[in-house]
Amino acid sequence: MKILIVGGVAGGASAAARLRRINEDAEIVMFERGEYISFANCGLPYHIGGVIKERDNLLVQTIEGMKTRFNIDVKIKTEITKIDKENKKVYAKNLKTGETFEESYDRLLLSPGAAPFIPPIPGVNSPNIFSLRNMNDMDSIISHIEKNSVKRAVVVGAGFIGIEVAENLLERDIEVSILEKAPQVLTMVDEEIAAQVHQNIKDKEVELYLEDGVTQFEDIEGKTVVKLESGKKITADMVVMAIGVKPENDLAKEAGLETGKKGGVTVNKYLQTSDENIYAVGDAIEVKHYLSGEESIIPLAWPANRQGRIVADNMLGINLKAYNGSLGTSIIKAFDTTVAATGLNERYLKNAGTEYMVATVNRNSHASYYPGGVPITLKLIFTKDGDILGAQGLGCKGVDKRIDVIATAIKGKMKVWDLQDLELAYAPPYNSAKDPVNILGYVAENMINGEVETISYFQIEDYLKNNNAQLLDIRTKDENELGSIPNSTHIDLAELRDNLSKLDKDKEYLVYCQVGLRGYIAYRMLVQHGFKAKNLDGGYKLWQYTVM
Amino acid sequence: MKILIVGGVAGGASAAARLRRINEDAEIVMFERGEYISFANCGLPYHIGGVIKERDNLLVQTIEGMKTRFNIDVKIKTEITKIDKENKKVYAKNLKTGETFEESYDRLLLSPGAAPFIPPIPGVNSPNIFSLRNMNDMDSIISHIEKNSVKRAVVVGAGFIGIEVAENLLERDIEVSILEKAPQVLTMVDEEIAAQVHQNIKDKEVELYLEDGVTQFEDIEGKTVVKLESGKKITADMVVMAIGVKPENDLAKEAGLETGKKGGVTVNKYLQTSDENIYAVGDAIEVKHYLSGEESIIPLAWPANRQGRIVADNMLGINLKAYNGSLGTSIIKAFDTTVAATGLNERYLKNAGTEYMVATVNRNSHASYYPGGVPITLKLIFTKDGDILGAQGLGCKGVDKRIDVIATAIKGKMKVWDLQDLELAYAPPYNSAKDPVNILGYVAENMINGEVETISYFQIEDYLKNNNAQLLDIRTKDENELGSIPNSTHIDLAELRDNLSKLDKDKEYLVYCQVGLRGYIAYRMLVQHGFKAKNLDGGYKLWQYTVM
Ligand SMILES: Cc1cc2nc3c(=O)[nH]c(=O)nc-3n(C[C@H](O)[C@H](O)[C@H](O)COP(=O)(O)OP(=O)(O)OC[C@H]3O[C@@H](n4cnc5c(N)ncnc54)[C@H](O)[C@@H]3O)c2cc1C
Ligand SMILES: Cc1cc2nc3c(=O)[nH]c(=O)nc-3n(C[C@H](O)[C@H](O)[C@H](O)COP(=O)(O)OP(=O)(O)OC[C@H]3O[C@@H](n4cnc5c(N)ncnc54)[C@H](O)[C@@H]3O)c2cc1C
Ligand SMILES: CC(C)(COP(=O)(O)OP(=O)(O)OC[C@H]1O[C@@H](n2cnc3c(N)ncnc32)[C@H](O)[C@@H]1OP(=O)(O)O)[C@@H](O)C(=O)NCCC(=O)NCCS
Ligand SMILES: CC(C)(COP(=O)(O)OP(=O)(O)OC[C@H]1O[C@@H](n2cnc3c(N)ncnc32)[C@H](O)[C@@H]1OP(=O)(O)O)[C@@H](O)C(=O)NCCC(=O)NCCS
Repeated sequence: MKILIVGGVAGGASAAARLRRINEDAEIVMFERGEYISFANCGLPYHIGGVIKERDNLLVQTIEGMKTRFNIDVKIKTEITKIDKENKKVYAKNLKTGETFEESYDRLLLSPGAAPFIPPIPGVNSPNIFSLRNMNDMDSIISHIEKNSVKRAVVVGAGFIGIEVAENLLERDIEVSILEKAPQVLTMVDEEIAAQVHQNIKDKEVELYLEDGVTQFEDIEGKTVVKLESGKKITADMVVMAIGVKPENDLAKEAGLETGKKGGVTVNKYLQTSDENIYAVGDAIEVKHYLSGEESIIPLAWPANRQGRIVADNMLGINLKAYNGSLGTSIIKAFDTTVAATGLNERYLKNAGTEYMVATVNRNSHASYYPGGVPITLKLIFTKDGDILGAQGLGCKGVDKRIDVIATAIKGKMKVWDLQDLELAYAPPYNSAKDPVNILGYVAENMINGEVETISYFQIEDYLKNNNAQLLDIRTKDENELGSIPNSTHIDLAELRDNLSKLDKDKEYLVYCQVGLRGYIAYRMLVQHGFKAKNLDGGYKLWQYTVM
Repeated sequence: MKILIVGGVAGGASAAARLRRINEDAEIVMFERGEYISFANCGLPYHIGGVIKERDNLLVQTIEGMKTRFNIDVKIKTEITKIDKENKKVYAKNLKTGETFEESYDRLLLSPGAAPFIPPIPGVNSPNIFSLRNMNDMDSIISHIEKNSVKRAVVVGAGFIGIEVAENLLERDIEVSILEKAPQVLTMVDEEIAAQVHQNIKDKEVELYLEDGVTQFEDIEGKTVVKLESGKKITADMVVMAIGVKPENDLAKEAGLETGKKGGVTVNKYLQTSDENIYAVGDAIEVKHYLSGEESIIPLAWPANRQGRIVADNMLGINLKAYNGSLGTSIIKAFDTTVAATGLNERYLKNAGTEYMVATVNRNSHASYYPGGVPITLKLIFTKDGDILGAQGLGCKGVDKRIDVIATAIKGKMKVWDLQDLELAYAPPYNSAKDPVNILGYVAENMINGEVETISYFQIEDYLKNNNAQLLDIRTKDENELGSIPNSTHIDLAELRDNLSKLDKDKEYLVYCQVGLRGYIAYRMLVQHGFKAKNLDGGYKLWQYTVM
């Protein structure tokens, strides 16, 4: 059995290692266009910032290691230029010597990844403009910074890579502007979560331009002038383009393999392309979203690694394994905060016309009386039948844990009320006796059962317009004085029960506190005393971020 | 509806708050023997050490707050001395005035907790001997330390509270000795995990006496001499007894309520005692273990809080909720390390005669190339059918997350292979592209499928005796020279494929590396080349801890 692999990093190298573990006899050849295999793509931004000090640490496995440990024949600086699927062979080009050659296969694996998307903006080929995909890109960026004593940089695109690059340029004391065409950064989360990141970015004195695109780059005296749709101009020593990636599907397309409408290579659940001897994994393929079932491109390392493992078994035909779709669980350290998400977000669901409910809680990462606990915001999206559709989190620590727990619950097909029963590890340095995820379960079930009705920050205006309603701030006097939603009445929750006679049964009260908890308690009190009420989901805090 | 609650902390206060949220009209009276309600029991050790600086931070909710927010009538320093279940009333004693009175109920909730177990050792009533359950105990310990300038302390018992107290005494620069009758600390984990804690305790220059009990305490010149079964004597300025807790079941027993063989109050799944109007929760009750089904006492805060929430709904008869048993998920910061567990452990399973398999992995808390990643040990216990029976973890960080994910998977009735498919959040500061839990899933499935056969550290001797077997160290030369298991042959994995001819097909090779991963790769290589082999689960590292 002879197996060829195109691409020697996340998906390709994982498949190669597994192939060898299950089959000592197969001939396995791995082709990599670049100079390095098995490098830590995800670590690249951090070496630019000097956070990862040793460049060598990014090289997770070497050619030598692949040879001695796994007996894999690795051909670097070798590009596969064409697939002849009828004759089961590929054409390869040695990029050092220019020499071309053919190589036959029994099975072929494509793991070519995705390339940074570079739109045809005038001036985009300037030597000051970079993108970041591999070790060479990283080396070029660092060398440009050092040679030109870069002081000012523009990052175009505020997705994962854009934010990470911006953060790491800042680590080098470079002044950074971030440009983003969308109204928010990090589109895996919804606007009210992103709004908190916007605040953090501004706190860092990084310039953030939202809803503004680049119309032109112009090089003047060694610097690049970035011209924006809004008419603004920014002059910088360097620009990093990070507006997304697109599947490397040229080889596949040219060979007549099916590709999907999102541009990825089409595979069945066994990761087999439309040709039975050719398999594909990683950033280059389209996968079904685990929850929506929709064809999606999810260019992340977990899926690439997982698919690499699965495809190895499938290519050898021993216990066929299905890849059941991606949830798109993702996380990023964005300056001082962690932002993470799993499943579907509100924006997607609104577009898709799917009905959903949202519960937002704000709890401490661990017991508030134990030092180091910090508030985290967690948002759960679910159906009225209790199915979990997605979750988002933000905070300085403890966010990864909660998103992982929810991602696990989704895969376990748990309902929102099952979250109440998750018996999670508690001691004061790690958690509270009720985990924030337990609380999400409570709040969500209360909503489904009608024990509380909520209004989202973006519904306030409409709600007040269409109802005989009054905003009621039930926080303490001190909190109220620090700022409140315009046109609110104020009664401290501690005095509410004794002051119910001051309220009007014909009106509806939109109660709010800082984060939602006390508002809920006030809501319960009011409705049981015959008043009409709603609770503001996420409270004043969430509202405040979205109007800032 | 009149509801009385005995005990005003975790279970009692949680129930009270929920009762009020769902019912504004009920009369709710909460009795607490002590001076404080709703305090953070779990924070007590940390205030002794000064880690939690403000004593007031331990008071999570006040009597005033319970009144204004929840309209709960709280009676502190009031002990319920007797239940008259026929007449649905209790007898109460005001501990300040000595006055006694009766109070009738429609529903009664018992959440009296568990008291420290103090065995009748001669001299145990010394004024130098303390236990730690509540604010007063904590105050007494601190005041004793300060008044007597305590320099040397003995902690009896190395469970959660014992270890936390020892750690916090050390924070105050007190020399500490820990005594434990069992052969290990923290019996929620198995010996090889505990062995790593033993090492950490010794590194901290805390004396640890295992398998040694106290026979006598003797006060001499203001100090207490602790005499051990081994004949040793330790002279200390104070002693803290922390050998476990026992359910406060006197009230219940006297009232003729059923108690179980472990000494806890018996409840049905709705947390109702043998009297239909009396409910009980928390440390005082016996619960079914979620996995074994066995009646257990699990004196932890998560169950108490969860049960308090559930019992409130059940007492009011609105949507009856079942408590489906406890997994016993637990965690502790033990000096520099985190130790956590969920489900059943090997010791329990051996005793119960249940068949099980074990997979141990050692991975970094996050990508090894990103600063701050530290190794964590994770152990998964499972059946040959893939059911998860339990998990244990140890390491400086990231252990809580993995145990929580596994606890969630257990509640989601996932199989070990489902752990492979958990799509967990990855970016270098948080994780690796394959989470350690994914790896556990791989290793476990490989074991079940027979893709690898393993030997545990404690089986080595027997295995070598009963087979024509040879230990084979496949680590690097450098690693081998730093120490190896006696009578090992050494061949570096990188050279193994080329040196197979040096091996003997009649022998069986017990392969090992540092943690198990390379051993597995060597195993795969060997068996595919026709050799007989086993891999040492957890590798040299685990073995080394258990022989130290
Ligand atoms: C800067 C950066 C940061 C990232 N951070 C994260 C993160 O924090 N978390 C996360 O989950 N994901 C992150 N990712 C994404 C993650 O690295 C990818 O999802 C993953 O590497 C995809 O694996 P792959 O095997 O599909 O492609 P790649 O790992 O990109 O490997 C594809 C390889 O194929 C080679 N190749 C392509 N065509 C050919 C050809 N014709 N012949 C020979 N070789 C070819 C390419 O040179 C390339 O090296 C990051 C990516 C980048 C670039
Ligand atoms: C020092 C310490 C550290 C801990 N650390 C952790 C940890 O890190 N993680 C964890 O999960 N758990 C921890 N626990 C355990 C946790 O605190 C308990 O599981 C939980 O508090 C049990 O709740 P409960 O309501 O059953 O009992 P408690 O919280 O103990 O409350 C019972 C109350 O009832 C009162 N009472 C008893 N009898 C009567 C009566 N007849 N009349 C009136 N009042 C009465 C008692 O005075 C007591 O205040 C710790 C406990 C201690 C003591
Ligand atoms: C380095 C690389 C080749 C490793 O691939 P790999 O060998 O499959 O992965 P690991 O080293 O984690 O080993 C996992 C294997 O060891 C086994 N294993 C791990 N720990 C074990 C233990 N303690 N005992 C026994 N087996 C163990 C697992 O079961 C698995 O084997 P299997 O797939 O046959 O079941 C590949 O992941 C890679 O190139 N990574 C860098 C690129 C990348 O991922 N980039 C994106 C993220 S930055
Ligand atoms: C303080 C104490 C009385 C709090 O009890 P509680 O009010 O039930 O708990 P919380 O303050 O967490 O509030 C949870 C409630 O608020 C709701 N809630 C929380 N956040 C919310 C939000 N953002 N929006 C709406 N509702 C929210 C939850 O749904 C839940 O209500 P429900 O039970 O009616 O569904 C009790 O936990 C206690 O005494 N603790 C200290 C003792 C202790 O636990 N010791 C052991 C550990 S140290």
